[in-house]
Amino acid sequence: MSQFRVLIDSNDEKGLVYKVSTVFFTNNLNILSNSEFVDKENNKFFMRSVVDGDIDFASLYKALKEVLPSSANIKVIEPKKKNIIIMATKELHALGDILIRHEAGELDANILAVISNYDKLESLVKKFDIPYIAISHDGYERAEHEQKIIECINNYEDVDYIVLAKYMRILTPNFVETYSDKIINIHHSFLPAFIGANPYKQAYDRGVKIIGATAHFVNNNLDEGPIIEQEVIHVNHTYGWRDMQRSGRDVEKVVLSRALKLALEDRIFVYANKTVIF
Amino acid sequence: MSQFRVLIDSNDEKGLVYKVSTVFFTNNLNILSNSEFVDKENNKFFMRSVVDGDIDFASLYKALKEVLPSSANIKVIEPKKKNIIIMATKELHALGDILIRHEAGELDANILAVISNYDKLESLVKKFDIPYIAISHDGYERAEHEQKIIECINNYEDVDYIVLAKYMRILTPNFVETYSDKIINIHHSFLPAFIGANPYKQAYDRGVKIIGATAHFVNNNLDEGPIIEQEVIHVNHTYGWRDMQRSGRDVEKVVLSRALKLALEDRIFVYANKTVIF
Amino acid sequence: MSQFRVLIDSNDEKGLVYKVSTVFFTNNLNILSNSEFVDKENNKFFMRSVVDGDIDFASLYKALKEVLPSSANIKVIEPKKKNIIIMATKELHALGDILIRHEAGELDANILAVISNYDKLESLVKKFDIPYIAISHDGYERAEHEQKIIECINNYEDVDYIVLAKYMRILTPNFVETYSDKIINIHHSFLPAFIGANPYKQAYDRGVKIIGATAHFVNNNLDEGPIIEQEVIHVNHTYGWRDMQRSGRDVEKVVLSRALKLALEDRIFVYANKTVIF
Amino acid sequence: MSQFRVLIDSNDEKGLVYKVSTVFFTNNLNILSNSEFVDKENNKFFMRSVVDGDIDFASLYKALKEVLPSSANIKVIEPKKKNIIIMATKELHALGDILIRHEAGELDANILAVISNYDKLESLVKKFDIPYIAISHDGYERAEHEQKIIECINNYEDVDYIVLAKYMRILTPNFVETYSDKIINIHHSFLPAFIGANPYKQAYDRGVKIIGATAHFVNNNLDEGPIIEQEVIHVNHTYGWRDMQRSGRDVEKVVLSRALKLALEDRIFVYANKTVIF
Repeated sequence: MSQFRVLIDSNDEKGLVYKVSTVFFTNNLNILSNSEFVDKENNKFFMRSVVDGDIDFASLYKALKEVLPSSANIKVIEPKKKNIIIMATKELHALGDILIRHEAGELDANILAVISNYDKLESLVKKFDIPYIAISHDGYERAEHEQKIIECINNYEDVDYIVLAKYMRILTPNFVETYSDKIINIHHSFLPAFIGANPYKQAYDRGVKIIGATAHFVNNNLDEGPIIEQEVIHVNHTYGWRDMQRSGRDVEKVVLSRALKLALEDRIFVYANKTVIF
Repeated sequence: MSQFRVLIDSNDEKGLVYKVSTVFFTNNLNILSNSEFVDKENNKFFMRSVVDGDIDFASLYKALKEVLPSSANIKVIEPKKKNIIIMATKELHALGDILIRHEAGELDANILAVISNYDKLESLVKKFDIPYIAISHDGYERAEHEQKIIECINNYEDVDYIVLAKYMRILTPNFVETYSDKIINIHHSFLPAFIGANPYKQAYDRGVKIIGATAHFVNNNLDEGPIIEQEVIHVNHTYGWRDMQRSGRDVEKVVLSRALKLALEDRIFVYANKTVIF
Repeated sequence: MSQFRVLIDSNDEKGLVYKVSTVFFTNNLNILSNSEFVDKENNKFFMRSVVDGDIDFASLYKALKEVLPSSANIKVIEPKKKNIIIMATKELHALGDILIRHEAGELDANILAVISNYDKLESLVKKFDIPYIAISHDGYERAEHEQKIIECINNYEDVDYIVLAKYMRILTPNFVETYSDKIINIHHSFLPAFIGANPYKQAYDRGVKIIGATAHFVNNNLDEGPIIEQEVIHVNHTYGWRDMQRSGRDVEKVVLSRALKLALEDRIFVYANKTVIF
Repeated sequence: MSQFRVLIDSNDEKGLVYKVSTVFFTNNLNILSNSEFVDKENNKFFMRSVVDGDIDFASLYKALKEVLPSSANIKVIEPKKKNIIIMATKELHALGDILIRHEAGELDANILAVISNYDKLESLVKKFDIPYIAISHDGYERAEHEQKIIECINNYEDVDYIVLAKYMRILTPNFVETYSDKIINIHHSFLPAFIGANPYKQAYDRGVKIIGATAHFVNNNLDEGPIIEQEVIHVNHTYGWRDMQRSGRDVEKVVLSRALKLALEDRIFVYANKTVIF
């Protein structure tokens, strides 16, 4: 008995559910969960099913391929621990939250390494017997520094996701393209408000009554990638920007961890710079 | 071209999605939306689809009936305005919110009448050209009073839902059974906390930091019916119980209107004293 | 026995609370509530007290004036119904919510009139016996149209607040200055995200997972005035922009009504394009 | 220059603010923050001020004592790290969150020790160089087991708070009285809903649409102590009780940490089984 997550996206047309469910039925598979969504505006169809039964990956993939339109994207995924690399700078809360969840067995992931441009977080990471690689940006051009990071990442095989747990350096298009759809970032505002540096200071200056955090995939345009998850908290006039920062950390870590969980469970489709999440 | 909402619940077994989607496909129907849920613990299957195509009610129902297990509940519903009767007592906010939504064309419903045990709300309801029937409980046994209400309701045909918009009298089992699965109530607490009278006073006495409201179907046990929707707001030590009541009204009206909308759109399954909502 | 709301803002210096409380104590006043805030960054002091006792307005004001720095702003306000004019366009929900609250006696305000650039809302407003003045912008320059509105407003005395309940026209600096700190607007996004036209469409295009609404005072820069209140709701990929709009209305009306209530209770200080709210 | 937190609660009477502010003014103290609340129903006055200036503890306390009613409770507290002992059982998330915050320097506290009735959490706690004492309840009467814990706690001086970070054993009245107003517990429901064992199972069975967590002081009646903080999240029919438990953990840890922070900053008054929080 094998279990598979089946993710399909396609131009919409009649009969897609019928065709997929026919494959499941004729192969005698159990449907453990099944979600569909049609984006009418763009005529796009999305489907995620979890099935189990007596079938192997290749047969299931082939059976789906045969019935679905050639334009359909089909993923058949065997549930297993994904490999992640975390990048951080100096802040401890988002990284710490992931480490604790990992320790608790909550995350279906292997943390291959933590890479930082400082050594500040080393003592924390080492407690958890996870490799910590400090790659200082000091004295390097941005591209040079990133190249060293890429080389470091290349030491690891099958990296599924790179999690930016408050990595505070801007990434170049080259870096981002290298790991397209694999980089998850936490931005400390409810995007698209307060793009860029020090969003809490911006929020304080604007006098908002709500602050938030946004987890998103990183694409070429800073802070403009597909949003995975957002959350907010209420603030008031007694909050200076450092108070906002302090309170905001609790939102940041929760939002990042939720987004990571969704990614690890293969629940996210990216389309038109947005996400469909089942 | 007709549009139908198809609601199916059944014991779970392999092939249900396949069978339903086969009916849709062979009848050349478009699936506008499709939601499924399997309650593993109870082995129950729930499905709601919205389809359109060149088919009539009887043919679609028959086609589904033929392929589905005999134990399956099948509803094929043509979208149209539902008929509702509102019951209220003296408070204006929840009733007023429904009246304004109705006026705005937001509610897919005809308000047949408002029934109250007082005449206080008459001037408001009359503004909207909706019949207002005051049936005082004064001098009547509970059963007698309810009988007069039932007679009043019986003057109207095809009543889909009875909405208790802060109707502050306890209903007898007889009344509730008469309109089984048709009565939607708003209770002014996050049930099951603060069942019974004056929940805001109870909340104040307990010193809670959050208050809420719960919309639910009414069954025989007061405040214990299947929950449709809940929402909360934060309060603090500066709130006396009347402040909680005042702030709570905004939650009550929003929760009741959301629940009513879900019912009018045939999005709710009731099962095991719970709701499955698509 | 008179009751007064005392609002003081001033440059901060030692002894302000002492001085104010000395005035209250030596005049034998009860303090019903008392709130203070010091903005350290800007060295500003804010205080709002509600007191009652055997004193008249002039004596209390004079006593405070004598002890406080000359730079202090002192307001001594007798609680009474404020006069408001509502401006709207075609949408019913925010206006309707205010009308229902007014009818319920929840709002400490007289609604002098509703002004709209369309006649669509007339039948609703007339139900509540409130004057409705349609002033079409059709065929007029913006300034001309506004001049007609100003003339209409000038027919009423002692207008405390102008409430923009989804008034969908941009106001000129001249109009805004004429009613400086008196215009309360509801914007249908969590500002500063999605300034300008059709924020729900913008939110949909950006793929956000949270939408919101912002009530703010209007100053010269559109959507950039001091924020009074914000609230949000979660959305997901199934929401088209019209679904966001529909769900957003519930947030808009609640946020506007909360902000209006704060204004009517004299709880808002405006300072540095922000609000301090007690 | 010293800084003090001044906490006063008293029967309400005229002049209390005047008297306290006179002490601050005549001693040339700066008021950094100032909060007051009068519970009219119970005629109780609460005040918390943070002041700095050239004064010592004894002089400030004496000055306040002289002017305030003899019934007033006066606390003058020098801000410093408080000493806490954490008790846990097997769950890692709430404990882990506190450890990470402590490591990040977010908590103004020394963690003297972690006591558990199991050894499961030892490896985590040891990473942070904090003493871990496993005191198994196996083979002991409840009173005996608690006596061993009390002896363990007695090894530490000046214990300010005992934090129950998912300590899953019921405490006897004797234990609770020994540490009256010092024990902070996290309960995994929005109390008073779902008192007792397995609240997530109870919530699932009841079909609620919101789950929550409650931090409270522990008094003799289980789950009935003064509530410090509550938070909730939305759930739906797809959540089994273990899903609720999993999602609920994020709420539990945030609520407990917020409550602990309030306690460490001396922001909580306990009165009439409720809290006043500034």
